[in-house]
Amino acid sequence: MKNSATCPLLVVGSVAYDSVKTSAGSRQDALGGSAMYFSLSSSYFTPVAVVAVVGEDFRERDVGVFKAHRVDISGLERREGKTFRWSGVYGMEDVNTRETLYTQLNVFADFSPKLNREHRRARFLFLANIHPALQLDVLRQMEFRPKLVALDTMNFWIGGNRAALAEVVRQVDVLFMDEGETRQFAEEANLIRAARKILSMGPRGVVVKRGEHGVLLVQNASLFAAPAFPLERVVDPTGAGDTFAGGFMGYLASTGDLSPRGLQRAVVLGSVMGSFTVESFSMERLHALRHEEIEARYRAFIELFKVSPLRNGQSLPWRNAAQPSD
Amino acid sequence: MKNSATCPLLVVGSVAYDSVKTSAGSRQDALGGSAMYFSLSSSYFTPVAVVAVVGEDFRERDVGVFKAHRVDISGLERREGKTFRWSGVYGMEDVNTRETLYTQLNVFADFSPKLNREHRRARFLFLANIHPALQLDVLRQMEFRPKLVALDTMNFWIGGNRAALAEVVRQVDVLFMDEGETRQFAEEANLIRAARKILSMGPRGVVVKRGEHGVLLVQNASLFAAPAFPLERVVDPTGAGDTFAGGFMGYLASTGDLSPRGLQRAVVLGSVMGSFTVESFSMERLHALRHEEIEARYRAFIELFKVSPLRNGQSLPWRNAAQPSD
Repeated sequence: MKNSATCPLLVVGSVAYDSVKTSAGSRQDALGGSAMYFSLSSSYFTPVAVVAVVGEDFRERDVGVFKAHRVDISGLERREGKTFRWSGVYGMEDVNTRETLYTQLNVFADFSPKLNREHRRARFLFLANIHPALQLDVLRQMEFRPKLVALDTMNFWIGGNRAALAEVVRQVDVLFMDEGETRQFAEEANLIRAARKILSMGPRGVVVKRGEHGVLLVQNASLFAAPAFPLERVVDPTGAGDTFAGGFMGYLASTGDLSPRGLQRAVVLGSVMGSFTVESFSMERLHALRHEEIEARYRAFIELFKVSPLRNGQSLPWRNAAQPSD
Repeated sequence: MKNSATCPLLVVGSVAYDSVKTSAGSRQDALGGSAMYFSLSSSYFTPVAVVAVVGEDFRERDVGVFKAHRVDISGLERREGKTFRWSGVYGMEDVNTRETLYTQLNVFADFSPKLNREHRRARFLFLANIHPALQLDVLRQMEFRPKLVALDTMNFWIGGNRAALAEVVRQVDVLFMDEGETRQFAEEANLIRAARKILSMGPRGVVVKRGEHGVLLVQNASLFAAPAFPLERVVDPTGAGDTFAGGFMGYLASTGDLSPRGLQRAVVLGSVMGSFTVESFSMERLHALRHEEIEARYRAFIELFKVSPLRNGQSLPWRNAAQPSD
């Protein structure tokens, strides 16, 4: 068996056409979907393969976006019917609120992921937000247990499919949830206790997504908090979470470093990648990043929360110890 | 003039009796107020003086709390009438929401801060959340311009006393505001642009308070984001902001380090101090901290957002550069 027959990173999720309106403008039927954002983001760091479904209306130029990023689309099924569509409006004053105008599942309604031989040997696997039963089915198809499996989900499945979701959570390594979902799934109001309760179910890490407030990574022996990169212009938050996951998994797949510190570094790179997505509609920015741009923002991001040591080494400035110089 | 006749740090604000209810329980007429939280917090790091007013009902044991922390209360006026009272209920599920049950200004209604000679020579000054006209009056009483003046305010004054508030903002160095207040005062939806707009009015730093999401410090040439210390048990958030300010100003007054990095370190110490206050009602925890506890939490806090360097020095793990080890 040649090593090239194993897939470093696989994502199973959606490819969609999104129609969004934000305070910065609007887009109609723009390229979107969890697998799309994830694969483009991770493609900067590692070869990545997509398992997803599109309709007959999927545009050739959008196939070209995958190809430009050398994404393996042998698992991109094309079926009769239309591509999944979603539409939403973000708050004109507060981009953290959004209202869904419509969700047209179309070919995604019957999505049943089929992994080919290579995909079943993926070393890293991201289960984007789909029905927990499908996520379980993907896990069952794997020939080997991947080195790391991460999972995204949403309140809809927590409310309606808790048992299936709990089973898949039990089997994965890292979970992505927003604050409300973490509390809801754990049935615990305190965020830290909620995350720890989820860790006790099986995962080694819970990534709590806090939107413009950044990310909290809870592992058994450590807590890590990364802010969101503060942007002067937020254009469209759609896809930020999946772009984050792409940077996160891309880092892990590229380095193989699954230590607690490695997961923390993955959070930082995920945050950097996510910040680009919100600066434009759709993939407009994510599609065309240069390494230098990513590196520059990575450095700026590190500066953002780098604490320089206290003036007198590590000693706090106790009263009666140091007095102000005049 | 002896050096001992200058006051290192002065706070002008409120002393109150708070009645609060949270998911953890309740307290009736517990010691509170901005000047109270601020002075106890800063007293660990520097001598501090209070200018505030209390009523005839102010308990002797509460005077003792000031004294135990060697707070200069020569400016604590006692007047006929009752001490300022506030009462609120915090969300049982979400401690970030609260409802005010009543505000009884009592002797605080006619508060007119009178600074004695020593206070007028304070090197560091914190103007807690009082009427902007009173904050201006305090500034006018100062014999010398302090090395640093910080100001706290609230939406009530932004809505009703914008002109006076704008005047005092123009004269201070550091401003404390929550996210909504920052946006409201700057009339700008984007938080970073809003903070920069405020910097253009005069201050050198804006500390944006985000509650359980931590703090953003915006200075002219730098941004700094500190998370809140993640707590498994939040008892009562009352006073967290003023405790933060006390640690912040205590650090600056004790070290005299007003560099951009110094303000960032002050934010970290402020966050550490604030985290203790929310772990108990009133001053129960803040009153009785040991240096070792503060140091231990300071170290844990630094770990919380310390980014270890990337595995390969500072190079990002680009695709085709490093491949996963098998």
